[in-house]
Amino acid sequence: MNAQLMDGTRLAQQLHAETRRRADAVTLNRGHRPCLATVLVGDDPASATYVRMKQRRCAENGVDSRAVTLPASSTTAEVTAAVRSLDADPMVDGILVQHPVPVPVDERAVFETISHAKDVDGVTSASLAAMALGTPTHRSCTPAGILRLLDSYAVALSGLHVVVVGRSEILGLPVGLLSLCADATVTYCHSHTQDLPTQIGRADVLIAAVGRPQLIRGEWIRAGAVVVDAGYHPGGLGDVETATAAERARLITPVPGGVGPMTIAVLISNTVDAAERGLVSA
Amino acid sequence: MNAQLMDGTRLAQQLHAETRRRADAVTLNRGHRPCLATVLVGDDPASATYVRMKQRRCAENGVDSRAVTLPASSTTAEVTAAVRSLDADPMVDGILVQHPVPVPVDERAVFETISHAKDVDGVTSASLAAMALGTPTHRSCTPAGILRLLDSYAVALSGLHVVVVGRSEILGLPVGLLSLCADATVTYCHSHTQDLPTQIGRADVLIAAVGRPQLIRGEWIRAGAVVVDAGYHPGGLGDVETATAAERARLITPVPGGVGPMTIAVLISNTVDAAERGLVSA
Repeated sequence: MNAQLMDGTRLAQQLHAETRRRADAVTLNRGHRPCLATVLVGDDPASATYVRMKQRRCAENGVDSRAVTLPASSTTAEVTAAVRSLDADPMVDGILVQHPVPVPVDERAVFETISHAKDVDGVTSASLAAMALGTPTHRSCTPAGILRLLDSYAVALSGLHVVVVGRSEILGLPVGLLSLCADATVTYCHSHTQDLPTQIGRADVLIAAVGRPQLIRGEWIRAGAVVVDAGYHPGGLGDVETATAAERARLITPVPGGVGPMTIAVLISNTVDAAERGLVSA
Repeated sequence: MNAQLMDGTRLAQQLHAETRRRADAVTLNRGHRPCLATVLVGDDPASATYVRMKQRRCAENGVDSRAVTLPASSTTAEVTAAVRSLDADPMVDGILVQHPVPVPVDERAVFETISHAKDVDGVTSASLAAMALGTPTHRSCTPAGILRLLDSYAVALSGLHVVVVGRSEILGLPVGLLSLCADATVTYCHSHTQDLPTQIGRADVLIAAVGRPQLIRGEWIRAGAVVVDAGYHPGGLGDVETATAAERARLITPVPGGVGPMTIAVLISNTVDAAERGLVSA
């Protein structure tokens, strides 16, 4: 193992500490805490666990959370009505709708119900366009967490070739757009990409966001590259086959303890941003 | 010269003919023609020429145009007020604000005043996000024209490596997003890209949208590639040094007569889409 590990747990703790100070200042100033509303639809155990983790981190960092739980049988109209009610509530600063919302609810329609100012998870069209245009917004949590992690290890993206594997609306797509705004050359790869190993071998910075365990083999990675693994699968596996990758990479995120902790830290930081002053980048 | 020329003039004529039939049907149905409002700020001769060309093509194809001309001294508030008035007018189906709007007017703020349904030029955040997400929208005219041109020459983008040089909000950025939605592997290059010749040499399909005459040299292009040149500069030059490129490429757009005619044809087609049924892809 030659690569230095990029310690997301430690960086997330630093961000949480900073967020907590800001949250306390907001509370002192306006008399009530910043508040994140979470919306959980259905009874997927993993989704329920993620929501609980987010609520716990809120509580630890001076932020209130308000939980809305809806049955799996909910209609799109019922879920959007719940979101609209939270959006209209001046006591709620930010809204998180836990992804994935179970079919047949139209997740996109639910997301678009959130106003831009309260979209602390960065899932609306308004946030996506703003990330593309470089205008003020809450940045999607995992993508923003990845950029913070790279920055903390002095990886300046300008001019580097970032290869993103995956193009999901809340991860691959926005992390590529944020990298482009940071002046990286950006390549999007996905399930239709031909000769994925060759494309990956061209990366100065590889961002694996494909959601399949160990799809990316270590020997595909260029010696000296930076590897960010946003995957998290049963058994603690990422999207990258880590053992060989760590022999070749210069910097690599562990799984767990890399990207994951940053996601929640950015979410709560975005919530306090919203409480402080509306739309500000994470 | 080995490359086959991609004839944008001919394809634009075909699209215009189809648009004219649809426009006439709308007129018969509702008693008045589809209408494109054009907004020209300042007295840049090139911008004035483009607007006149668009109005002429409207008239030729059964579409009314309404011209709003504002002085270069206009404020952002004055221009947005003019756009808002057109947006509220039920006789106006689509709105084109000619780019570039002269500084110090905030062009982005002006664009965002256009409602999604009337954004037939595809310049708003709502349109950009929809192009990224693959949801219904008017697609930006030059990018949509490029995709139509490729399709008409049987270039199926799925799995191909599209390299876009340039990342402007109305050309490079959206044409890459549309290519990604068409399942291409997409690389964005720009002024910070290192080793541009190497990146360009990897392209199955090169889309040059950089706005500098003959910046891209013919010998950089891979033998058998498809070359789309969206540049148009004095002396009839494109962004690509054509003579050598045409020796190497399999298909290439002429300048003029390639991408340019498609832009206006898509604009008017989008306007008739808006008149017919609201938001539909070009």
